[in-house]
Amino acid sequence: MQKNIKITTREENFPKWYLDVIESADLAEHSPVKGCMVIKPNGYAIWENMQKILDKNFKESGVENAYFPLFIPESFLKKEAEHVEGFSPELAIVTHAGGEKLSEPLVVRPTSETIMYATFSKWISSYRDLPLLINQWANVVRWELRPRLFLRTVEFLWQEGHTAHASEKEADDRAREMLEVYKKFSEEYLALPVIVGQKSESEKFAGAKITYTAEAMMQDGKALQMGTSHNLGQNFAKAFDVKFLDEKNQEQFVWQTSWGVSTRLIGALIMAHSDDKGLVLPPKIAPIQVVITCIFKDSDEESRVVKYAKEIENELKNRNISVKIDQRDLRPGEKFFEWEKRGVPVRIEIGPKEVDSHMIVYRRDTSEKESLNIPIETCANKIVKLLENIQTNLFEKALKFRDEKIINVDSLEEFIKEIEKGNFVCAHWSGEKETELKIKEETGATIRCLPFDMKIDTGKCVYSGKPSNGRVIFAKAY
Amino acid sequence: MQKNIKITTREENFPKWYLDVIESADLAEHSPVKGCMVIKPNGYAIWENMQKILDKNFKESGVENAYFPLFIPESFLKKEAEHVEGFSPELAIVTHAGGEKLSEPLVVRPTSETIMYATFSKWISSYRDLPLLINQWANVVRWELRPRLFLRTVEFLWQEGHTAHASEKEADDRAREMLEVYKKFSEEYLALPVIVGQKSESEKFAGAKITYTAEAMMQDGKALQMGTSHNLGQNFAKAFDVKFLDEKNQEQFVWQTSWGVSTRLIGALIMAHSDDKGLVLPPKIAPIQVVITCIFKDSDEESRVVKYAKEIENELKNRNISVKIDQRDLRPGEKFFEWEKRGVPVRIEIGPKEVDSHMIVYRRDTSEKESLNIPIETCANKIVKLLENIQTNLFEKALKFRDEKIINVDSLEEFIKEIEKGNFVCAHWSGEKETELKIKEETGATIRCLPFDMKIDTGKCVYSGKPSNGRVIFAKAY
Repeated sequence: MQKNIKITTREENFPKWYLDVIESADLAEHSPVKGCMVIKPNGYAIWENMQKILDKNFKESGVENAYFPLFIPESFLKKEAEHVEGFSPELAIVTHAGGEKLSEPLVVRPTSETIMYATFSKWISSYRDLPLLINQWANVVRWELRPRLFLRTVEFLWQEGHTAHASEKEADDRAREMLEVYKKFSEEYLALPVIVGQKSESEKFAGAKITYTAEAMMQDGKALQMGTSHNLGQNFAKAFDVKFLDEKNQEQFVWQTSWGVSTRLIGALIMAHSDDKGLVLPPKIAPIQVVITCIFKDSDEESRVVKYAKEIENELKNRNISVKIDQRDLRPGEKFFEWEKRGVPVRIEIGPKEVDSHMIVYRRDTSEKESLNIPIETCANKIVKLLENIQTNLFEKALKFRDEKIINVDSLEEFIKEIEKGNFVCAHWSGEKETELKIKEETGATIRCLPFDMKIDTGKCVYSGKPSNGRVIFAKAY
Repeated sequence: MQKNIKITTREENFPKWYLDVIESADLAEHSPVKGCMVIKPNGYAIWENMQKILDKNFKESGVENAYFPLFIPESFLKKEAEHVEGFSPELAIVTHAGGEKLSEPLVVRPTSETIMYATFSKWISSYRDLPLLINQWANVVRWELRPRLFLRTVEFLWQEGHTAHASEKEADDRAREMLEVYKKFSEEYLALPVIVGQKSESEKFAGAKITYTAEAMMQDGKALQMGTSHNLGQNFAKAFDVKFLDEKNQEQFVWQTSWGVSTRLIGALIMAHSDDKGLVLPPKIAPIQVVITCIFKDSDEESRVVKYAKEIENELKNRNISVKIDQRDLRPGEKFFEWEKRGVPVRIEIGPKEVDSHMIVYRRDTSEKESLNIPIETCANKIVKLLENIQTNLFEKALKFRDEKIINVDSLEEFIKEIEKGNFVCAHWSGEKETELKIKEETGATIRCLPFDMKIDTGKCVYSGKPSNGRVIFAKAY
């Protein structure tokens, strides 16, 4: 089943390298249905870990899970003008079902604002029903002509949070709070620093008042949007008549938010940390954190080695580490190679020589090997520390890489040069949509965000020369 | 948001009672899309608990999760003749996407045998790739004209396991092993006894060689199929060319199984245990196992009562019990009523009088109340025991109820009488399809299963008088 493919180097061909890493780590593949992917067990296990952590965070912030229909009547989608305009080119439509033509076509959900809020309008009648904090884990469909595993597929898995509030401030606070959840998740678990900020008008979500975003840098210097959180204002509330009686018995429209992350995050994880040997996973998200490879020549050696491996496994499991013992009868090199490609953070090699309280410990991130000749409990404690160390190291490496590649520029010439080099560019912008579009046409770069920590720093727009109040982040993006 | 509806009694109108219980416990509702349901947070939390337990069991048996596309090319479905015949009346079809008519229509998956096995044929080449043990948690769509919340909806959530093996015996063992997982889950967690056995030819899954089933009895005496597990033989392997080289280097088709349970199980849970006051949940599946209702008249009382409630909560949480404190400013009766309707197994009432190490403990299953005047740690231990006791009591009650309602009959007259009374009937059957169909037409009852523990007991078919080798279970079914 597993092919021994040679991984293209990043330098040689970054997009090809990305696909090679996915194939050699057995994460996903294109399906027979054009544009749809099959998420294989190794890839799905990463998604399950992401779900577990995010779901816990959502619940701790008071959000409850629910499930809404896959299908949306076409007429619902049309109720919010910008929303339907944004999504209509990407829709998949069910026209026939149960052997008959449907009287109204059904859209396969590209996102669930419309179907959910039609229901919210029945659930909400008083300020006592607010805030309403709902999340769903689901599949969504957006027709993509140029699919790319994890990054852009016709169907993908995601979570979508949808909340309703009694005041604009409360909704905006919630939108920012969920962005903060995404930021923490990216940085603490995926070891991937993000820039948080606000999208420009032309890049915001179709139907939102404000879109907040968390943007990360990949190893080719391109940006990847990790998650977005939208302050929807009252746009959808008005379209779907989501109203409540306030404390003074006055009828008001609710203020809403929506926010989501998807299986795209797996693509980000790959492109941020992996190397020319294959996948590199941060320990906190790795389905297998430690693999113990058993090396033996005969069954007598095998039983001694496996016995020792199980003792180590036990010590590690007691420390909440997820461990796998590899006792397959393969050449050591083959085993090592496979676990490297799969990105397991730590490998312990056990052969007959190691059985007397020795072990050889290999860390995937730096390829360093260490021989430990200490009691097994002490080893286990060292491995806990080592995993923490790998997690920190990956984050710091990514942070340093990114920070060196964010360049302040003050002329269009420099702008183009730095974008071509694969950098993020931090430049003054007049705030005009036309300028933004021209820059996109001429350089391929888009405004990733107006960072929250943007300094008030008057200057001149890098393109139009008109006055600007601060620098925004431009980059080519996935 | 929550309406105070009056629950119809079971005696009065069982189907109406079922819907009233769902509505008053706020579990689900019909969506604006015909036939599709919205699973509300209280209902979804039950599903999440089911998923957690089943998923753990699957993984312990070596199964890995993956994810396959929602869409299936129409031509795939047609490759297995019985399969397409069984499913074609229920299909939803995407004909347009991305603004264009598709060259080949896509079916929204009603089940994933075809799309998965087209991929399995690429994954499997040698006996070393076997067994392949895959599960997916997903939504599926089967066009239903008479939808019923949880029991029969156009879209539902489920898991579908799909495995491939090198021998027929291994596949059959796996199909039976997974049925056993479902049986244990039903009995130990849902407190719901099941009869396990084999489906008759006409009731088996479209495309299967043998279908195994776990059947439960609802309070109206109807049967509900809790889960099925199929030995698919080589039917799909031949249709999708899933082959492997065996140890002798001979090419062979694999032997396959598939097995699934769905959100239907929530419907079963409701109809098995609930009463005229509303939902009753077995503690092992209840999202909230204990609710502590705080009763107070002023803020001084409130702070004393809530402080005490938190101490109790703490003791219970240390014992892995899921607890909710209800300190809303509502009348005690209102609170009690709400938690009863929601099926929380144990309620602790705390008022100012109870603060000095008293508490009043109410169990939902029997409506018994007890006043405990013992130290808080002892109380907590008692509540752990009480929850176990409730779990056992619900199972035993359901078992007794069912066993009293399985009736051996030897004439068609008796058969009709017992079915009309809402019993399961255990009767001789000749094994002929025509007889089975005639019995269905004349009595509304179907063969639920040929039980595994069927005694070899020669007799005469209750309908045709022809020889029979044993009694099978007939019932009306959901």
